[in-house]
Amino acid sequence: MGVRAAVAGASGYAGGELLRLLLSHPHIELGALTAASSAGTTVGEHHPHLAPLADVVLQPTTIETLQGHDVVFLALPHGHSGEIAKALPESTVVIDCGADFRLADPVAWKRWYGSDHAGTWPYGLPELPGGREALQGARRIAVPGCYPTSASLALAPAYAAGIAGPDAVVVAASGASGAGKSLKPHLLGAEVMGSLSAYGVGGAHRHTPEIIQNLSAAAGEPVSVSFTPVLAPLPRGILATCTAPAKPGVTTERLREVYETAYADEPFVSVLPAGRWPTTAATLGANTAQIQVALDEDANRIVVVAAIDNLTKGTAGAAVQCLNLALGLPETTGLPTTGVAP
Amino acid sequence: MGVRAAVAGASGYAGGELLRLLLSHPHIELGALTAASSAGTTVGEHHPHLAPLADVVLQPTTIETLQGHDVVFLALPHGHSGEIAKALPESTVVIDCGADFRLADPVAWKRWYGSDHAGTWPYGLPELPGGREALQGARRIAVPGCYPTSASLALAPAYAAGIAGPDAVVVAASGASGAGKSLKPHLLGAEVMGSLSAYGVGGAHRHTPEIIQNLSAAAGEPVSVSFTPVLAPLPRGILATCTAPAKPGVTTERLREVYETAYADEPFVSVLPAGRWPTTAATLGANTAQIQVALDEDANRIVVVAAIDNLTKGTAGAAVQCLNLALGLPETTGLPTTGVAP
Amino acid sequence: MGVRAAVAGASGYAGGELLRLLLSHPHIELGALTAASSAGTTVGEHHPHLAPLADVVLQPTTIETLQGHDVVFLALPHGHSGEIAKALPESTVVIDCGADFRLADPVAWKRWYGSDHAGTWPYGLPELPGGREALQGARRIAVPGCYPTSASLALAPAYAAGIAGPDAVVVAASGASGAGKSLKPHLLGAEVMGSLSAYGVGGAHRHTPEIIQNLSAAAGEPVSVSFTPVLAPLPRGILATCTAPAKPGVTTERLREVYETAYADEPFVSVLPAGRWPTTAATLGANTAQIQVALDEDANRIVVVAAIDNLTKGTAGAAVQCLNLALGLPETTGLPTTGVAP
Amino acid sequence: MGVRAAVAGASGYAGGELLRLLLSHPHIELGALTAASSAGTTVGEHHPHLAPLADVVLQPTTIETLQGHDVVFLALPHGHSGEIAKALPESTVVIDCGADFRLADPVAWKRWYGSDHAGTWPYGLPELPGGREALQGARRIAVPGCYPTSASLALAPAYAAGIAGPDAVVVAASGASGAGKSLKPHLLGAEVMGSLSAYGVGGAHRHTPEIIQNLSAAAGEPVSVSFTPVLAPLPRGILATCTAPAKPGVTTERLREVYETAYADEPFVSVLPAGRWPTTAATLGANTAQIQVALDEDANRIVVVAAIDNLTKGTAGAAVQCLNLALGLPETTGLPTTGVAP
Repeated sequence: MGVRAAVAGASGYAGGELLRLLLSHPHIELGALTAASSAGTTVGEHHPHLAPLADVVLQPTTIETLQGHDVVFLALPHGHSGEIAKALPESTVVIDCGADFRLADPVAWKRWYGSDHAGTWPYGLPELPGGREALQGARRIAVPGCYPTSASLALAPAYAAGIAGPDAVVVAASGASGAGKSLKPHLLGAEVMGSLSAYGVGGAHRHTPEIIQNLSAAAGEPVSVSFTPVLAPLPRGILATCTAPAKPGVTTERLREVYETAYADEPFVSVLPAGRWPTTAATLGANTAQIQVALDEDANRIVVVAAIDNLTKGTAGAAVQCLNLALGLPETTGLPTTGVAP
Repeated sequence: MGVRAAVAGASGYAGGELLRLLLSHPHIELGALTAASSAGTTVGEHHPHLAPLADVVLQPTTIETLQGHDVVFLALPHGHSGEIAKALPESTVVIDCGADFRLADPVAWKRWYGSDHAGTWPYGLPELPGGREALQGARRIAVPGCYPTSASLALAPAYAAGIAGPDAVVVAASGASGAGKSLKPHLLGAEVMGSLSAYGVGGAHRHTPEIIQNLSAAAGEPVSVSFTPVLAPLPRGILATCTAPAKPGVTTERLREVYETAYADEPFVSVLPAGRWPTTAATLGANTAQIQVALDEDANRIVVVAAIDNLTKGTAGAAVQCLNLALGLPETTGLPTTGVAP
Repeated sequence: MGVRAAVAGASGYAGGELLRLLLSHPHIELGALTAASSAGTTVGEHHPHLAPLADVVLQPTTIETLQGHDVVFLALPHGHSGEIAKALPESTVVIDCGADFRLADPVAWKRWYGSDHAGTWPYGLPELPGGREALQGARRIAVPGCYPTSASLALAPAYAAGIAGPDAVVVAASGASGAGKSLKPHLLGAEVMGSLSAYGVGGAHRHTPEIIQNLSAAAGEPVSVSFTPVLAPLPRGILATCTAPAKPGVTTERLREVYETAYADEPFVSVLPAGRWPTTAATLGANTAQIQVALDEDANRIVVVAAIDNLTKGTAGAAVQCLNLALGLPETTGLPTTGVAP
Repeated sequence: MGVRAAVAGASGYAGGELLRLLLSHPHIELGALTAASSAGTTVGEHHPHLAPLADVVLQPTTIETLQGHDVVFLALPHGHSGEIAKALPESTVVIDCGADFRLADPVAWKRWYGSDHAGTWPYGLPELPGGREALQGARRIAVPGCYPTSASLALAPAYAAGIAGPDAVVVAASGASGAGKSLKPHLLGAEVMGSLSAYGVGGAHRHTPEIIQNLSAAAGEPVSVSFTPVLAPLPRGILATCTAPAKPGVTTERLREVYETAYADEPFVSVLPAGRWPTTAATLGANTAQIQVALDEDANRIVVVAAIDNLTKGTAGAAVQCLNLALGLPETTGLPTTGVAP
């Protein structure tokens, strides 16, 4: 099967990771690779690690260049996907790595993004309860944000199993690629290396409503989430430390059972053995998540830690996983399950 | 004034930081520098950054070598300080950077450390409510743990002001020096760099009861704390993200007022202007803490972020600050208030 | 084709990288994975990134456990390979990632390693002039050292083409995994991060005679090499800056022509376009090398910079590349040509 | 003594380091702190580590704001210092951290910088042979470039002693702050962390003629230098690996003697004991240099490794050291001799 795929926004970090993964996907044939201001330059100038594409020239991101593909990946700033998706045939698989179609609630969208709601597409986190079914055969898919992926993988099983109270606290540290190729002083290597900093504190990060949406859906009732993102000195990786009140009667055994059951058949999620703790390095470049759980009996809280690579399982790997589901391929096709470590 | 100071445990990271700070303290004259298995080696072999002490030979850590000083700093594994302190004159200022005398509750000590309680000394965090008075003129001082320093600076004002509910959640990421010079595979550079990992999750870290002790004292009632430490890829620095339920009626203005009032006269603690967030790099090598606060109205939680250098304000700087109080010197004597950045 | 492969020394960094690559090799079936003191533990304890092997138990490294395989990879400290190789059938492909069989000169071996010379096997750097032929169908192969790989890829073409004088200078900085899992204080994360240091200076590193051997062979005359290794704060990667006197009449055009010709058909080596410079990140986890050349007309020296991943093209990737040649498979089988970046 | 000092270019990295050092200088009173596009913002916005100056407002860099000071530090892009210096009184001490007045040869200046030569000021590296005398009482001083400082400290003694041949090779790796606050993609944290890269290869870096100037002056004859800078993943620090041919008869003992003699009375330069090697971390934030030497008898080359902090001894510390000489103060006044490590 030859599936012809275009990537819009191929010069950025998410675009580069898509290219890396698609290059080793056995059924994908790369078509148009497009960019905005970088149109006319080569892939090699932006992604020196993608040796096989070094001389490929980026085309402008237009509806014309994106037409005629079986699949179009959009790795664009939010607000740009709706128009493109409308112009593409309904039969084309369109996978949006941006935020535009993630939120179901138009009011929440307006509040957090300031513009009109573009709509809601099937949400690309198959590991959520009921998440896989909506993606099989889908032709429009919204890839989750990287932080929501980590937090949702961490806490959704507890909420789905009814063992967690509604006041969640998520503190998630991310590598600098999560901020994209933004040319801002605080993202310079000299400032990022050797430093930890918080930002978007107090619920100000746009991923907050997405986490709330996922956990509330799993719980079947409203969940509040205090979410704080932390910028950490590594290129890639998210470590999310997530806690929620333990409902009466929860034991360590029950907690482990909930997670081991939830992820027993998931090819990309590992619940680690007792005594071992997730490290982001173990997921580097892999479409995997590492999860560990603990019950803090003194504080009466469940603590769940999840590690992912923000660009792989957190973005581009999820996109390819969704593509596999959309096309009816085995879900793991072309996706690495081993990280690059140490 | 010439104050003669000994440092026991001078070959470790805390010991090295003590030496660095004491070298620039205008009233200190260094006496015996001691070590256990490294006795007989030079300071230069362990601390190549301490050029002025390169050729000083480490003596064995014995009561004999430590006697005859005005001040003795102990930077030893827990369990070793009690015996030494007993053998030193009561007039000697003994400042313990270890855990032995931090906890007031013998039951808590026994539970977390497994041995008999050695006692309780004045607690070396002058910024806590009422903390300074107990240190002025003291002759035995327990320097706080690095995580408890960050978490207590972050949350004690809210508890003291009665604006926070009793269920705190603390997630604090630390640089690798926090683990000391332990020769364990997971602390090797190849494994630490480029990775974030959690450990001691679910309330298993020994700093947990110390945080609880401090926050409960500030609140005047029992506070529960869910504490998760994270190992981050930097040599030094702690970023603590701390949240607690907001009591009814708390506003952003009230929250800021509480913190600005609490730290208005503190020489080492900065409450940052709105819109700026703490970074650990800004505190590198300094005895400072950076604090920022936010009210998350959706989650109804106060969020406080604190950045410190775990070896300076988190350990050795606090020790020198306490020494200044013990001796009646200006509290800032010999202590850096600027970090080394970028 | 099912090729059954054993890995001896599977708990170390080179062993882990071998496992990572072999897992995605289409013709390999993993057999015994062995270790010394770690026998009895699981792969997951040592290599949390190798999720598919998490529960596999390491066996002891003995001749018994290693027998009965088509291929045996040895990732052992030097001095251990000879005895094992002798006990294995001649028809077994034995690929040694250690130093034992790299040097052709018994006197050099004795001088640098202090023991008797075990012998010389075909040298696993197919990109050297004439290097590939010796590996096709071979049953015993010595994988090069990581520094010699980078320096030889950088300078061998210039020597083979007769455009470089005999006094080479190589300064190569390596990530910390190059030192292996040695539990030494200077390799702790707290000391490695944020620091650059030199070691083995003045020609004291054991890779020196191997570099000399390769460059002298390429030149057809003795070449002297001043080699300085530098420990750099990253987990993986070598950047080798290599210079040699330019022979009279060498021009920039001629220099580029030599390298572009030498590597025109090499699947893993890229000579970058003018104006772009190698970065180790571009080779992370890939079996690739990036090369760039310049002629310094003022200093009359050729400067060649090479970037590789010390664990992939520098060790385990080269081993798999050699296996492919030994078995008559396409040389790129199962080997990544894209790095994981940023 | 109250010396009133202005800093032009106070928002950049060199400017920030000047402020950090001047804050702890006992005779300095800070006057105007100026910037170009950042005029009107506070120091705290650019340098969160400089807590005591957090609220100081940056003034525009004009002759008016800079007048009326005893000392003016210029930390500006090259090409801007000449005009300012001309407009300031001759009695004002003007210390230029930029390149404008470093090169003595107008032809070399024109070739490397493309503009007309502004002139030549006393060169601010007192450790060079004869270097100190020219600075005592000077009113115009050119602070060396960071790479030339490291390379000159490493090789000038060998050339001055006549033990090194004229073909030097310098490979120096620098932390990212050496590139300044330039908003370029390859300087983003995501790209710098975990990567080593070369740039300005083949003698293309503008610090090359400055190194040649210094070494030739020490040798008393023309020295050629092949210089390659490497960008390394740390915020600060330069490790320079420098080699030159050993002249006939040079022994290890003679080599050590040359260096120990040359630096015997230097307060900021340490020649390390045999067996220890420089690390940049040992110089972090200090005005120090660590030096080690080796004789490679096989390659017949001297190898000298030097570690400095590019912002301290490499720039701002050197500027303050020069100020001390200009004003007749003890040379070490206000300058740290201990690094911040680990």
